[in-house]
Amino acid sequence: MPTVLSQFKDIHTFIFDVDGVLTNSQLLLTEKGELLRSVSTRDGYAIRRALQQGYRVAIITGGKSQGVISRFQKLGIVDIYAGIQHKVDAFEEYLLTYDLDPAGILFMGDDFPDYEVLQKVGLPTCPNDAIPEIQAICQYISPIKGGGGCARDVIEKVLKLNGKWVG
Amino acid sequence: MPTVLSQFKDIHTFIFDVDGVLTNSQLLLTEKGELLRSVSTRDGYAIRRALQQGYRVAIITGGKSQGVISRFQKLGIVDIYAGIQHKVDAFEEYLLTYDLDPAGILFMGDDFPDYEVLQKVGLPTCPNDAIPEIQAICQYISPIKGGGGCARDVIEKVLKLNGKWVG
Amino acid sequence: MPTVLSQFKDIHTFIFDVDGVLTNSQLLLTEKGELLRSVSTRDGYAIRRALQQGYRVAIITGGKSQGVISRFQKLGIVDIYAGIQHKVDAFEEYLLTYDLDPAGILFMGDDFPDYEVLQKVGLPTCPNDAIPEIQAICQYISPIKGGGGCARDVIEKVLKLNGKWVG
Amino acid sequence: MPTVLSQFKDIHTFIFDVDGVLTNSQLLLTEKGELLRSVSTRDGYAIRRALQQGYRVAIITGGKSQGVISRFQKLGIVDIYAGIQHKVDAFEEYLLTYDLDPAGILFMGDDFPDYEVLQKVGLPTCPNDAIPEIQAICQYISPIKGGGGCARDVIEKVLKLNGKWVG
Repeated sequence: MPTVLSQFKDIHTFIFDVDGVLTNSQLLLTEKGELLRSVSTRDGYAIRRALQQGYRVAIITGGKSQGVISRFQKLGIVDIYAGIQHKVDAFEEYLLTYDLDPAGILFMGDDFPDYEVLQKVGLPTCPNDAIPEIQAICQYISPIKGGGGCARDVIEKVLKLNGKWVG
Repeated sequence: MPTVLSQFKDIHTFIFDVDGVLTNSQLLLTEKGELLRSVSTRDGYAIRRALQQGYRVAIITGGKSQGVISRFQKLGIVDIYAGIQHKVDAFEEYLLTYDLDPAGILFMGDDFPDYEVLQKVGLPTCPNDAIPEIQAICQYISPIKGGGGCARDVIEKVLKLNGKWVG
Repeated sequence: MPTVLSQFKDIHTFIFDVDGVLTNSQLLLTEKGELLRSVSTRDGYAIRRALQQGYRVAIITGGKSQGVISRFQKLGIVDIYAGIQHKVDAFEEYLLTYDLDPAGILFMGDDFPDYEVLQKVGLPTCPNDAIPEIQAICQYISPIKGGGGCARDVIEKVLKLNGKWVG
Repeated sequence: MPTVLSQFKDIHTFIFDVDGVLTNSQLLLTEKGELLRSVSTRDGYAIRRALQQGYRVAIITGGKSQGVISRFQKLGIVDIYAGIQHKVDAFEEYLLTYDLDPAGILFMGDDFPDYEVLQKVGLPTCPNDAIPEIQAICQYISPIKGGGGCARDVIEKVLKLNGKWVG
């Protein structure tokens, strides 16, 4: 039976939810009804690094903010599933598109809409402030909160175990 | 005499104040004098869920920010009383409009303008950082701060007790 | 010799610094170089209340953001000294304009530019996170941080001691 | 062998990274893809003070936000190296331009891109929440987090040791 550490080592693909994972689950409202989200520069650095080292990084989010899409496109992420009602459908489309084995996929989510996908990947993970129901089904709970660098935490683990973090 | 738990179970209507309850009592000022407010995506999820399950959700606020109104309209809330000087008047108008029994209403407020309405509902509640005078008259004080998901906390309680939270 | 409590009771005028007192000493930078500041809705409520009850409220700030000025004008503050290099000059102009006795004035500041004025008022106060040199010369250090409601803390004290806070 | 205290005393030049040092490593995303950063007014005060007292202050950042550049230009910083891929190149260009001795330079960084420059200056420093690899090579770790006033912390130390902080 594989340990969590060996599972981190064999990851080839990272998939992240946005609100509560790559952001801190807060929205800042302008008077015009625009929504602003807070992201971590450290997650950005790690995502770039993972892509440079040949890892796959994808996003599956219920939201459809152009600002969020634009931010993650600039970091180099190509596979961005936005405005998704049923995340498991987007997940399965993604698997098919690239013929991926779910055993090598790390997913990070924080709330109910992530529940089903978390049950289908090899390494289900969540930030420190995910809801209890999500924490209960994850194999790894990051010590870091959503939006505070929790994506970097898991990316760094995988890349370090493969000697690809620094150098 | 009913326990707090049985009171949560019988709630059919949620009413929320905005500043300090659905937001964190901070305002971000732009140089043009625009005001930005911080809300929780988790509250948003729970409000949508409550509406889908047939609960009533209303807002009574002293503010009149178009951004706030637009945010909560998008979540599906129809009854938004904004720019209200005396909240108890809006509250009584709301009761009359839908012929509601106050015993089944949960109100959440954090400051003096909420005082009178809190005394008229079946289940008066507040966030963790409400002022002491408000905490003193509430039957339930959420462990969560204003703007951090305290609305979700009470909605989740009511829906779970009725088997309507997940599924 | 008067106690701090009796000094609070006799206050007729409040003067506040902005950055680090009415805001949290953070600035949010937009890409166009605009600066956004975070203020507390609770301070806003208390300032309105003090003005309604006939207290004087003034602002002396080194900044000159139109957004800040507009925010505090909307709350009803008339005496706003903005873009001030030497705060003690603005303070003395204010005293002269209204023929005020400094013994009945509460000033709240957090940093060096506030040092001199703090030494001239009857009740020098500061937020919890003022710099040590300012804390050392204040007669009252609020338990609340800058921008988190520290102005409300001192206004509430004065108005409560005079039976003018609620009612 | 010099102590850290004597090294602070002999500093003539401060160089700061931006994201995670002069800001809190969070970015606020607008729906149009604009990025907002949070800075400390206390850092701003200290940078102005250092420049007034004849110290050199420079910035070396991987980012190229016009808002950031404009903010620091307004504080009086002339040497701003923005959009830098390899910080050590900008650092060496800066040394050459002013014929500076690295022994008298304090650099503050928080993440991998700062690693190489930190190894070349007399006094390598970092904020409290720098990554472990950076903390490991710094001679001084500020008790303050990035964006919360850590630049002021080191500037204040140097200026106080030279009697140039207040007065």
